[in-house]
Amino acid sequence: MTLTLDQARTIIAAARALGREKDMKPLSVVVLDAGGQVLAFEREDGAPVGRFALAQGKAYGAIMVGVPSRQLGVMAAERPHFVASLSTLYDGKVVPAAGGVLLRDAGGAIVGAVGVTGDTSDNDADAGIAGAEAAGLVGQG
Amino acid sequence: MTLTLDQARTIIAAARALGREKDMKPLSVVVLDAGGQVLAFEREDGAPVGRFALAQGKAYGAIMVGVPSRQLGVMAAERPHFVASLSTLYDGKVVPAAGGVLLRDAGGAIVGAVGVTGDTSDNDADAGIAGAEAAGLVGQG
Amino acid sequence: MTLTLDQARTIIAAARALGREKDMKPLSVVVLDAGGQVLAFEREDGAPVGRFALAQGKAYGAIMVGVPSRQLGVMAAERPHFVASLSTLYDGKVVPAAGGVLLRDAGGAIVGAVGVTGDTSDNDADAGIAGAEAAGLVGQG
Amino acid sequence: MTLTLDQARTIIAAARALGREKDMKPLSVVVLDAGGQVLAFEREDGAPVGRFALAQGKAYGAIMVGVPSRQLGVMAAERPHFVASLSTLYDGKVVPAAGGVLLRDAGGAIVGAVGVTGDTSDNDADAGIAGAEAAGLVGQG
Repeated sequence: MTLTLDQARTIIAAARALGREKDMKPLSVVVLDAGGQVLAFEREDGAPVGRFALAQGKAYGAIMVGVPSRQLGVMAAERPHFVASLSTLYDGKVVPAAGGVLLRDAGGAIVGAVGVTGDTSDNDADAGIAGAEAAGLVGQG
Repeated sequence: MTLTLDQARTIIAAARALGREKDMKPLSVVVLDAGGQVLAFEREDGAPVGRFALAQGKAYGAIMVGVPSRQLGVMAAERPHFVASLSTLYDGKVVPAAGGVLLRDAGGAIVGAVGVTGDTSDNDADAGIAGAEAAGLVGQG
Repeated sequence: MTLTLDQARTIIAAARALGREKDMKPLSVVVLDAGGQVLAFEREDGAPVGRFALAQGKAYGAIMVGVPSRQLGVMAAERPHFVASLSTLYDGKVVPAAGGVLLRDAGGAIVGAVGVTGDTSDNDADAGIAGAEAAGLVGQG
Repeated sequence: MTLTLDQARTIIAAARALGREKDMKPLSVVVLDAGGQVLAFEREDGAPVGRFALAQGKAYGAIMVGVPSRQLGVMAAERPHFVASLSTLYDGKVVPAAGGVLLRDAGGAIVGAVGVTGDTSDNDADAGIAGAEAAGLVGQG
């Protein structure tokens, strides 16, 4: 399946809603398609201005490597040189910290990724997973 | 004034609405703040996948140089070497074609830019201007 | 639909077969998926060693902009500054010359692109189109 | 001797065959010539989309430094700053982890490298070595 803009908007809305419900700091949320290309993005008022790149890096690294960005963070602690090389391979767009959540369809195929940044990494990932579920997808964060 | 996410969403919605009304091809629309940082983006279904960079380049060039991207297109035809240097100065994020529309408040101050791509450059700019007006701003395209 | 490796191999084999049938110079053929990511590549013996980048640039530009690379060549002649900006936007991976052929499914959706280089640009495009047809796709070159 | 496309195809087929036999995860396999230029590549269905760069980085680093990428991983653990500089020298195309296997002819000369990614690094290297042997070469992994 191909992720639609409506799905991407639903994901962003639900991620932001969880942020408000849990009183998180202002969130920035990007949705990438299965090829890592940007589909939609929103940065909440009060978030630092440079958050697009951070949200994109979480989601892009997840898509390129095929694992949630949380796992890239674990790999970075164990093998920093390897994750450094990933960053270079993927044009610097790899952020090894939780918040980059793979979006899978019912069959398990990766259809895109959502990248969230703003609060703690764990909360960022929770917001992304909530977004995935709202769009009828499984979020692997 | 500082552009809000709600305004950005209004701009994108109104630009897309004009696109549907005029039967334009699928649009991609980005809104940048006064510093050129990404605030919101949406890519309509059926648009080529790489459209984020193109929309961003129209709006970013406009913000950095302080003129609509249409004018950068005129400059590029007259002085290609100068616009080539602008592209290099601004990390390649300069697209010299109409569709990058400056957003001005009632006092004339630049508060951001909207970048639209998908249809003819003229139509892209019209959509951006419609977006600006819907948010109570003046669009200079 | 998602392009499979078997389809990509069929495309490459058929493009190369046309090259041999028409006595073209050694061909290099890449197949990219709908997101512009590399799926398969072959460089025939005797081709210049740097042909991967050239084949990729034809196909990648086509995917990112949503038009065959032949059309990017026409645009480059008319508006060189615009195509120069596309090259910068897409990491230099834009070759504005025929041979980058969009792959469309029966419904018209872009599912990838094939990039061919080695002979004349027209022959390169013919080889890519032959490849598309062999895989049950429509090649737009 | 100069590596041929037929040899490269044999290497890829044999590496993939070992992957299927050992029930490895979907593999991506690149073959580079003695100059580090891409000769052939295949990405199996289900592999993460960004695997070309990873496969290439394993093989390219091996060719440029003249050691298997496994050894670059050992060097990276001992002298991370040195391997970081290699990455910069070689355009970021250095992945310090097993799976980049040097291809040597009967006389011991390096004729190319195969880069495999998808399963554990050790399994990746085993697949590359199997590919080398199938083509009548010695794989140093």
